[in-house]
Amino acid sequence: MPSEADQERIARYRPLSGMETPRFSGLASFMRLPVMEPREAPGRIDIGLVGIPFDGATTNRPGARLGPRGVREASTGTRARNAATGIAPYDLAACADLGDVPVNPVDVAATARAIEAFYRPLAQAGIVPLSVGGDHFVTYPVLRALGRTRPLGLIHIDAHSDTDDGQYDGTRLTHGTPFRRAIEDGVLDPRRMVQIGLRGSTDSVDELDWALGQGIRIVPMEAVIDRGLPSVLAEARTVVGDGPTYLSFDVDALDPAYAPGTGTPEMGGFTSREALQILRALRGIDLVGADVVEVAPPLDPSGVTALVGATLAFEILCLLAEAVAARRD
Amino acid sequence: MPSEADQERIARYRPLSGMETPRFSGLASFMRLPVMEPREAPGRIDIGLVGIPFDGATTNRPGARLGPRGVREASTGTRARNAATGIAPYDLAACADLGDVPVNPVDVAATARAIEAFYRPLAQAGIVPLSVGGDHFVTYPVLRALGRTRPLGLIHIDAHSDTDDGQYDGTRLTHGTPFRRAIEDGVLDPRRMVQIGLRGSTDSVDELDWALGQGIRIVPMEAVIDRGLPSVLAEARTVVGDGPTYLSFDVDALDPAYAPGTGTPEMGGFTSREALQILRALRGIDLVGADVVEVAPPLDPSGVTALVGATLAFEILCLLAEAVAARRD
Amino acid sequence: MPSEADQERIARYRPLSGMETPRFSGLASFMRLPVMEPREAPGRIDIGLVGIPFDGATTNRPGARLGPRGVREASTGTRARNAATGIAPYDLAACADLGDVPVNPVDVAATARAIEAFYRPLAQAGIVPLSVGGDHFVTYPVLRALGRTRPLGLIHIDAHSDTDDGQYDGTRLTHGTPFRRAIEDGVLDPRRMVQIGLRGSTDSVDELDWALGQGIRIVPMEAVIDRGLPSVLAEARTVVGDGPTYLSFDVDALDPAYAPGTGTPEMGGFTSREALQILRALRGIDLVGADVVEVAPPLDPSGVTALVGATLAFEILCLLAEAVAARRD
Amino acid sequence: MPSEADQERIARYRPLSGMETPRFSGLASFMRLPVMEPREAPGRIDIGLVGIPFDGATTNRPGARLGPRGVREASTGTRARNAATGIAPYDLAACADLGDVPVNPVDVAATARAIEAFYRPLAQAGIVPLSVGGDHFVTYPVLRALGRTRPLGLIHIDAHSDTDDGQYDGTRLTHGTPFRRAIEDGVLDPRRMVQIGLRGSTDSVDELDWALGQGIRIVPMEAVIDRGLPSVLAEARTVVGDGPTYLSFDVDALDPAYAPGTGTPEMGGFTSREALQILRALRGIDLVGADVVEVAPPLDPSGVTALVGATLAFEILCLLAEAVAARRD
Amino acid sequence: MPSEADQERIARYRPLSGMETPRFSGLASFMRLPVMEPREAPGRIDIGLVGIPFDGATTNRPGARLGPRGVREASTGTRARNAATGIAPYDLAACADLGDVPVNPVDVAATARAIEAFYRPLAQAGIVPLSVGGDHFVTYPVLRALGRTRPLGLIHIDAHSDTDDGQYDGTRLTHGTPFRRAIEDGVLDPRRMVQIGLRGSTDSVDELDWALGQGIRIVPMEAVIDRGLPSVLAEARTVVGDGPTYLSFDVDALDPAYAPGTGTPEMGGFTSREALQILRALRGIDLVGADVVEVAPPLDPSGVTALVGATLAFEILCLLAEAVAARRD
Amino acid sequence: MPSEADQERIARYRPLSGMETPRFSGLASFMRLPVMEPREAPGRIDIGLVGIPFDGATTNRPGARLGPRGVREASTGTRARNAATGIAPYDLAACADLGDVPVNPVDVAATARAIEAFYRPLAQAGIVPLSVGGDHFVTYPVLRALGRTRPLGLIHIDAHSDTDDGQYDGTRLTHGTPFRRAIEDGVLDPRRMVQIGLRGSTDSVDELDWALGQGIRIVPMEAVIDRGLPSVLAEARTVVGDGPTYLSFDVDALDPAYAPGTGTPEMGGFTSREALQILRALRGIDLVGADVVEVAPPLDPSGVTALVGATLAFEILCLLAEAVAARRD
Repeated sequence: MPSEADQERIARYRPLSGMETPRFSGLASFMRLPVMEPREAPGRIDIGLVGIPFDGATTNRPGARLGPRGVREASTGTRARNAATGIAPYDLAACADLGDVPVNPVDVAATARAIEAFYRPLAQAGIVPLSVGGDHFVTYPVLRALGRTRPLGLIHIDAHSDTDDGQYDGTRLTHGTPFRRAIEDGVLDPRRMVQIGLRGSTDSVDELDWALGQGIRIVPMEAVIDRGLPSVLAEARTVVGDGPTYLSFDVDALDPAYAPGTGTPEMGGFTSREALQILRALRGIDLVGADVVEVAPPLDPSGVTALVGATLAFEILCLLAEAVAARRD
Repeated sequence: MPSEADQERIARYRPLSGMETPRFSGLASFMRLPVMEPREAPGRIDIGLVGIPFDGATTNRPGARLGPRGVREASTGTRARNAATGIAPYDLAACADLGDVPVNPVDVAATARAIEAFYRPLAQAGIVPLSVGGDHFVTYPVLRALGRTRPLGLIHIDAHSDTDDGQYDGTRLTHGTPFRRAIEDGVLDPRRMVQIGLRGSTDSVDELDWALGQGIRIVPMEAVIDRGLPSVLAEARTVVGDGPTYLSFDVDALDPAYAPGTGTPEMGGFTSREALQILRALRGIDLVGADVVEVAPPLDPSGVTALVGATLAFEILCLLAEAVAARRD
Repeated sequence: MPSEADQERIARYRPLSGMETPRFSGLASFMRLPVMEPREAPGRIDIGLVGIPFDGATTNRPGARLGPRGVREASTGTRARNAATGIAPYDLAACADLGDVPVNPVDVAATARAIEAFYRPLAQAGIVPLSVGGDHFVTYPVLRALGRTRPLGLIHIDAHSDTDDGQYDGTRLTHGTPFRRAIEDGVLDPRRMVQIGLRGSTDSVDELDWALGQGIRIVPMEAVIDRGLPSVLAEARTVVGDGPTYLSFDVDALDPAYAPGTGTPEMGGFTSREALQILRALRGIDLVGADVVEVAPPLDPSGVTALVGATLAFEILCLLAEAVAARRD
Repeated sequence: MPSEADQERIARYRPLSGMETPRFSGLASFMRLPVMEPREAPGRIDIGLVGIPFDGATTNRPGARLGPRGVREASTGTRARNAATGIAPYDLAACADLGDVPVNPVDVAATARAIEAFYRPLAQAGIVPLSVGGDHFVTYPVLRALGRTRPLGLIHIDAHSDTDDGQYDGTRLTHGTPFRRAIEDGVLDPRRMVQIGLRGSTDSVDELDWALGQGIRIVPMEAVIDRGLPSVLAEARTVVGDGPTYLSFDVDALDPAYAPGTGTPEMGGFTSREALQILRALRGIDLVGADVVEVAPPLDPSGVTALVGATLAFEILCLLAEAVAARRD
Repeated sequence: MPSEADQERIARYRPLSGMETPRFSGLASFMRLPVMEPREAPGRIDIGLVGIPFDGATTNRPGARLGPRGVREASTGTRARNAATGIAPYDLAACADLGDVPVNPVDVAATARAIEAFYRPLAQAGIVPLSVGGDHFVTYPVLRALGRTRPLGLIHIDAHSDTDDGQYDGTRLTHGTPFRRAIEDGVLDPRRMVQIGLRGSTDSVDELDWALGQGIRIVPMEAVIDRGLPSVLAEARTVVGDGPTYLSFDVDALDPAYAPGTGTPEMGGFTSREALQILRALRGIDLVGADVVEVAPPLDPSGVTALVGATLAFEILCLLAEAVAARRD
Repeated sequence: MPSEADQERIARYRPLSGMETPRFSGLASFMRLPVMEPREAPGRIDIGLVGIPFDGATTNRPGARLGPRGVREASTGTRARNAATGIAPYDLAACADLGDVPVNPVDVAATARAIEAFYRPLAQAGIVPLSVGGDHFVTYPVLRALGRTRPLGLIHIDAHSDTDDGQYDGTRLTHGTPFRRAIEDGVLDPRRMVQIGLRGSTDSVDELDWALGQGIRIVPMEAVIDRGLPSVLAEARTVVGDGPTYLSFDVDALDPAYAPGTGTPEMGGFTSREALQILRALRGIDLVGADVVEVAPPLDPSGVTALVGATLAFEILCLLAEAVAARRD
């Protein structure tokens, strides 16, 4: 229960309601929330929604740079209260749209620096970031900012492990390598890391061997099907434990029927109900940040992928708001 | 078993077969059935298929006014016999396409009157209507025509409750209010009404409280998943009982992967097999009318939503034909 | 040449440059301009860009309610200086995005009132509005606000005359009637009104007779081809003269190849170069407001129509900025 | 001027007006005209609109079998009077939609027989057919039916000559051969035949040599550009003279920007205004039939090609109605 | 375990890796495998991937002629090792892309002969074909080539039985008849044939009666749901036994949500995970050939169907490689 | 006239004809030409078609990395002889598809090196490259390879000047800077360089000033319209003179109606006929290489942009073949 002062503060940051103005009207901020300059955020808000419109580390089909814009638009359809869990995130935490990181679309390393520089003051101010990518590379600099003081645990929902060492004879910063880099940098604790939903074909077994050697818990899609999601999710909770944990959701974890608009789709993924089931099982984990990545609107003419991205973001926002409230108490 | 006279009459109204002329040829009437003026229907047919090309009560993305045309086209792929249930609807009931209600696309109230005026003579003649919308508002005037002599029961498959009181400071006729209006008018019996598949986020809990206060049985998607569809469907039968019942199927009950072409899609809906399972469980209910609504073809470039709409309409036609036959006996 | 104080004021309202942050990043305001509450606009800005996301008066295919959002996105590709004319609008006038009018998507009359109420204080404060629709009906209430003190002249670029008396047996407020209503209300001077680009088939000759009877100058597309655009545009200048004039550009004036995303496309329209030629010929007219209407993004999967809408809006903004500067001098 | 009896007869066959019911409502017949069984047409109507949903002779991308359905839908946007020419076709001739030829999608020869059998009684009854394909092969059997008693002249607007002898080592019935076959059969007079708009690359010069050897007048696109359309169209009139003439319009004559939905698009074609200009220049020719072919809706997500097909069909209908009226006088 | 010579030979035919050159680069051969002339294949390779770009036997919507091209492109995303089963097909068998059969798009019978002529030398050389259609008719001539010396068993995954006798009053070679023709020709053993996933509506019960009369085991979708896939797949293994068996996978077996790009979609089909589950259960069967058919890219703007087709082809390739290795041992 | 030996050699490299196998069959090489390893090209061929699937220097919407694949597919529709000019390129020069440059999608500088390394041996062997991009940055390393021994002239058709110095505070290798870099490197002679078609809005006048200061001849679209294309093209010939000249065609030079599938479309561009007119006017120039860039297939659902790209490539191939033949004589 927030203090009276907190309640008052929180009440200042509410999304526009579709009961008063139509959801398709007005500028499309995340969830129709107020827009705020990042430098004004400290002391005012608890959770900052941030776009990272960068796909310059993509080695497959591009388009995720347009993800933040697409997810913002689709997110105008979310409302104030999660009907399934009863969570009303805007009653628990002050939330705002902090705009986009100023990326450099043609320079991976420069963008990595820009992202880290954007998130570091947020981290220092205790503002929990919910980011929308962008390709999966963007998670690496975010982790560098958030995991600076102590390595984080990670719940990683994805079709791919993204723990490659490199591609093309030595290129080490791609959307296939973020978690290897983060582990090497000590900002991610591989023994508190679980990957769920991996599938498809692979180029080698080395990547897998390295990941297992680091202590990462990997639950490929086949294991999910065999064991059932409840067992897998219970294990995930055990792996990350009580420590500070990041949540990274690659939309290609879902089957292409549910999320065709992504650069590297893999047949045989999660249904949308399973994706929601996964997220709703993560209540109570000490989440300190999260992202939804790889939404590539130009690859999806029907727009369902952006809708999925926006709905996942809302569900994660509910988790983050509860975590914020729990830490406040 | 129809009487010999009935059999002869029924045999006059058969769809064209794709074994003789290709399904893509000829004018696209519903199910390739004969087209008939509504005023000629009484005494000739048992079931009338009607389009209601109206989306003027939509508060989100429009396009459902093009639903009847899209569903007619897709329905040319249906054939004479339901392979799953064995029902051959055109052997049980005389069916025809009665064309579209003459709506006024920019005037909700005038359209409500036009719809009611269109259905009243059909109701008086005992012709069972199967309607294709159009946004969900259109169900309200249909219920006014059909429930005029006694309130109806309702099986309502949808992502949304559509029992709002109003929007925008007092607008009471929208696609979010049809069932509240119908209950207020006494044409719908809330205690014989069940809503299945509700989900997503909500703007308030008032709508839900009102609905529960009226005695409506609500089974949100989470409860469907927990309990399983068979239990839910058994309860639905109990709720509506033996009395005259209407069936309203909003295509957004399905997950956006299965039905992207709708104005207010919500992640996490029914699969197509579940939708068929629901309908096939409703055999034996005393159905007096039904509709499929919110198919918005411009929002679905692959056309699967119109296909879903057409297939649902065919499955419902099978139910209505059995109900007609049962009442005849 | 603005005064020093004006220059300083104007300099506060500049669009973000794509040379510094990518055009696809950040919230998509019109032209990447600052966003401002309408009530804060008086005294600060000269030109207000406004979205009117309403297509509830559309009697054909809907979708224009999503026009403001689509045009905002596409407008992020415009830059600071018009390379063809040399006009640098943001050096001449302070411009801002004033957001969207709070429309009621299911009530034409209520929306008309909301639009008029939104524009009246702008008009009183001398702020020149550049509006993006929405269907063409929205021009009527804008004209009521702007033409209140004296009737306006009108340059109307369109495939349709939009001077019908009504449809469906007496419905008088549709996207086919705005100019007839505005003339009846005395806010539009038909003798200072010219319509350019009309074409296609017609339901009757009555509409035309009425318009000609009022003194409206009509230049159908055939006459444009015969006479050449320069002659037509010279005539247009003569018709509107030196008085205050409104400019209304319906995107369906363009050929469907150039602007497929509109509700009532008509084969045989303007090319994009002709559209630019038309606008660039209107320099020096005393424009007091303008709009671009009928952009319907869901009907255009390639997005070229929103791009056309945004580019037309930028060209018109250049005209308005010059008019503002001229009136200032 | 039709006789009083004719006027009365003609008045029975009028299209539905969009001023009374919306254009998107009701079953989509050609131009919203009455639907009639072909066998009931003789004595009742002057012009029969017919769909030929066949693309089984296509050697490139398929989809034109869905042309009649797509054009019917788009044609609901045409109105009663041609604003450019003033022709009101439904005042001059009784018109109806005669449905589709019962084609066999997998058998070219059988379909050729079915088409010829469908058109022969129409020809005998003096009913002028306006056909919508379907690939260009369908013109061949139509010509066999119409040119049976004397060879016809032909105005052929197309990107391709369609006078090949065959493909794939001897296949002689394809969409590349209809006019060669018709000339061989004596139903088409090559000296009264003109082809306008040919362009692109070619596999050989043999086809051209044969065509020129037969006396066909060929005006490739380059010549159109050099000489100007008026000169070309004057020549076309001279070529066909006063005799009975058929008009065949392949939508790929237009540039792919204007008509992307066709199987064999060729860059550099006619604009939509030129296409209209061509047709409007053909008034007074003794047209006995016409077609619009190669509209392939699945290849055009924006629908502009079907709109072009429908508008061309309406313009041609105006020509046919005048020809009918002229022959009646 | 291949002999050393075999290992050396097999190692010559490896796909390009996406770790070295991007998957979107280079000509798109199946799986990025080497391309080889069919006449050079004997003695060199074990498995030949072949495209059959023919949809001239389609009685519904066309487009499958573009299937091979679409599947080749999507197949560039597959990698060297099946992560779920651990099979590394290119270690077990030498594979190459043999190009496309030279079909005649307008002549079903000629194409049947061309297909059979293409496959006969492959069959004689013991090369196992994996074909990508094309419509389902193409399976018939492939079976004639492969089943020439002894009738084959068949595992048939499809929404439709494709055992019709004919359509349109006697047309016997369509995509609805391949298996009836193959049984009549003695190249397919109906008692070793199982059909899984049939569903939808039917025109008659005759087709079913004939199929059952022949001894074909039919498991419609309803039975799959009732019994569960494991039981069905165990039965399938029993039906085909140890004998040489063909596998034919029609992509319309999947639900339209998963595979919208197909000519005759039927609501209520398999999910992508079930499709993979089916294939992975077929390890150990003596497969002598296989195909994936009815992928129609023009009907699927998001491209998921081609992705499904390519992934199914990869999974089947794994099965065939194991079968080749097993026969080698 | 090639020597007999040349004729024999040239005759070995002919495209497959659509008269023998359908254009949609087989692997899609450029123009259906033979595929050859670059290292085997010297001494065998005169012209090499090369794909450069790289869009990592794009600062706007991505997708051009898929350009080579899209253009290859569309190019299968071109035939052996240019009907407009009579040029039969495959009779004049031996042509082959040399595959794609092995780019690194996430590293601009590494890709620049890879491109230069790919083209240098071709240049040394006197093989004329016709490249398909990729974003416009790729022209820079190609120019470095071709202009190494002496600076080249340039005919540059584009909506943008691409002579920026940098973006984002110092990034110098982007698709907006290739020609500035090439001039700085001395491989491009600015006084023999002409830019045609520039238009739209600009961020500053600096870029223009620099370009003019270098002596580049710039003909913006407005000047093209004013002066007419013939005058502009005559000037272009004068500018480049008799020296070795490169031709670079950015598809965004065309209007978005003709080429929507490009990252930075600008309203008001060339028509397709003008684009052909431009190219056909360049006969006789001493062309030593050429490219077509910025085709981004994911941004164009109708595929017309890839068709335009392929047709432009064919027209340019005709020019290059004539230049090769002229140099041979």
